[in-house]
Amino acid sequence: MTDFDAVAPPDADIAVAARARQANLIKPPGSLGRLEALSVWVSSCQGVCPPRQFERARAVVFAGDHGVAAAGVSAYPAEVTAQMVANFDRGGAAINVLAAAAGATVRVVDIAVDAKESLTPSIGAHRVRRGSGNIAVEDALNDDEVAAALDAGRRIADEEVDSGADVLIVGDMGIGNTTPATTLIAALTDSEPVAVVGRGTGVDDAGWARKTAAIRDALFRSRGSAGDPVALLRVCGGADLAAMAGFCAQAAVRRTPLLLDGVVVTAAALVAEELAPGAKQWWQAGHRSTEPAHALALQRLDLEPIVDLQMRLGEGTGAAVALSVVRAAVATLSSMATFDEAGITSPPDKP
Amino acid sequence: MTDFDAVAPPDADIAVAARARQANLIKPPGSLGRLEALSVWVSSCQGVCPPRQFERARAVVFAGDHGVAAAGVSAYPAEVTAQMVANFDRGGAAINVLAAAAGATVRVVDIAVDAKESLTPSIGAHRVRRGSGNIAVEDALNDDEVAAALDAGRRIADEEVDSGADVLIVGDMGIGNTTPATTLIAALTDSEPVAVVGRGTGVDDAGWARKTAAIRDALFRSRGSAGDPVALLRVCGGADLAAMAGFCAQAAVRRTPLLLDGVVVTAAALVAEELAPGAKQWWQAGHRSTEPAHALALQRLDLEPIVDLQMRLGEGTGAAVALSVVRAAVATLSSMATFDEAGITSPPDKP
Repeated sequence: MTDFDAVAPPDADIAVAARARQANLIKPPGSLGRLEALSVWVSSCQGVCPPRQFERARAVVFAGDHGVAAAGVSAYPAEVTAQMVANFDRGGAAINVLAAAAGATVRVVDIAVDAKESLTPSIGAHRVRRGSGNIAVEDALNDDEVAAALDAGRRIADEEVDSGADVLIVGDMGIGNTTPATTLIAALTDSEPVAVVGRGTGVDDAGWARKTAAIRDALFRSRGSAGDPVALLRVCGGADLAAMAGFCAQAAVRRTPLLLDGVVVTAAALVAEELAPGAKQWWQAGHRSTEPAHALALQRLDLEPIVDLQMRLGEGTGAAVALSVVRAAVATLSSMATFDEAGITSPPDKP
Repeated sequence: MTDFDAVAPPDADIAVAARARQANLIKPPGSLGRLEALSVWVSSCQGVCPPRQFERARAVVFAGDHGVAAAGVSAYPAEVTAQMVANFDRGGAAINVLAAAAGATVRVVDIAVDAKESLTPSIGAHRVRRGSGNIAVEDALNDDEVAAALDAGRRIADEEVDSGADVLIVGDMGIGNTTPATTLIAALTDSEPVAVVGRGTGVDDAGWARKTAAIRDALFRSRGSAGDPVALLRVCGGADLAAMAGFCAQAAVRRTPLLLDGVVVTAAALVAEELAPGAKQWWQAGHRSTEPAHALALQRLDLEPIVDLQMRLGEGTGAAVALSVVRAAVATLSSMATFDEAGITSPPDKP
């Protein structure tokens, strides 16, 4: 099933109270810049002012392979996806290290890795299929698989929120996955392939040309699906992208703040906002990746990245770095003294 | 005395080793963007690869008043400086909260607060005078005071490094201090006042006009001091700015990495680089503030801010937020697995 419960907005009354409290902290109004807006956002998501510091931050990495990798669209062979799942499990990958630095734990889920079986039964509990189809020449999924993948994402979000997660990070792992992600963004924003195709994790000129051709072919195949996000996931998406979309939508349904990562996650988020309108109010864009399609997707979602560090790895790494900034924002609103408490002389223009 | 020992560069051989290790971590080369360069920088500053995570991060806030505040260049009255020193001491200010969030402790030093005496003997141990002169009409300091303030900054850096600080943050507090800071930057970069004058912590239009006039008068008074950074500190700087300059220079002499904050700290850093050439190799720009003069100073120092969150508070707050990003960078190089360890298939073009 592809329907999501209605998304309620973050608490508007609490947002008013949080803005008022920010204005009364001992610093000039507005001088903490973006931190002020982020603190108000967390407060309104939690429905409490001052906000609580996050106690269980959780990064979920969605792994899946893509048949289009066989077309030579990536600098890496598809077998690296399964190898990286093992590294996430061992704890030596970038997301493990960056999540730990930001006080988050990591879970990896195998949605559609192209391996005979998942690394462990737990990692494979939500597996939909072995690799998604080569979108240049065939549908990524069938109807049942799209529904199963969306539902997998929904259930994973439920599991995490039920386990107490109070902020979520979405990450991706899949050789070739920027190809379907870029295709989805091009289809949903009506963009030309050459305007949106990036280097992914570092493909060379010939690979870039192959990637652009694959995206053009996939977009051609998707012509009949314009305006139908579920059909787009089937024709030119993939099981991991569908699961991420379900996860992003359900996090909002469950009133849990979520940090998006780069181009792959944001492509899924674009679909999620179509499936669960208003979900984006529960999200922040963690970082600005170097992929051109990412900027288009962010613009469509009206989200401004928190950091811009020229990262292009995926895994949730950009969002993990941003989590420290969001924590800092929460700390200002929850822990700074107010003018009333501190005995500071207010400026003449301050009531 | 205004001479500093020669600054040695960070370890170039270790930088080579750190870059090689970054290239062998299990992610595509370059995909961690700015984090990679930051990790190499920390490694070369520490002279060890992989780098150690910071164990004693320390923020030092330099407090001082400025006679020019009487000209109405700030939204706040001068008495707020002393009130904020008390709040730093109590722990409720933004820098206390943001430093704690980034794993740093805070020290506040009264270099030239306009109060009869310092809040505590410890905070006032390096006090140079009560307020600096009104640079619109008189010198900020005399020759002896410039030397004493530079030396105070040097001694504070020595105290911190001797106490084990392995990364430093410089912060400022002083009503009206963006006026001398902007004047110094205009003098050192040969810029027109109207091109560099910002709103500080939020002055209104009339205040902005008064501030611009004060800066123009101070620059007129400084004509004979072009090219002489010590003379500029005397004529149109201030004791707090001189102490910050001494601190930034001595941190480099003592081979300790340091994060700059906004326009006031960066004005002092511009002077420090003149006094101790090469010191800037030991610094990173924590954040980009909204003050126009800040961008000019950063450009002159060839430093690119780590975060851009539209902050304009000072106190070291922007640098404190950036510290979390630098910690994340260190974590990648110190804790991620390498290709050799992880059994990942290298891309065809990777040796």
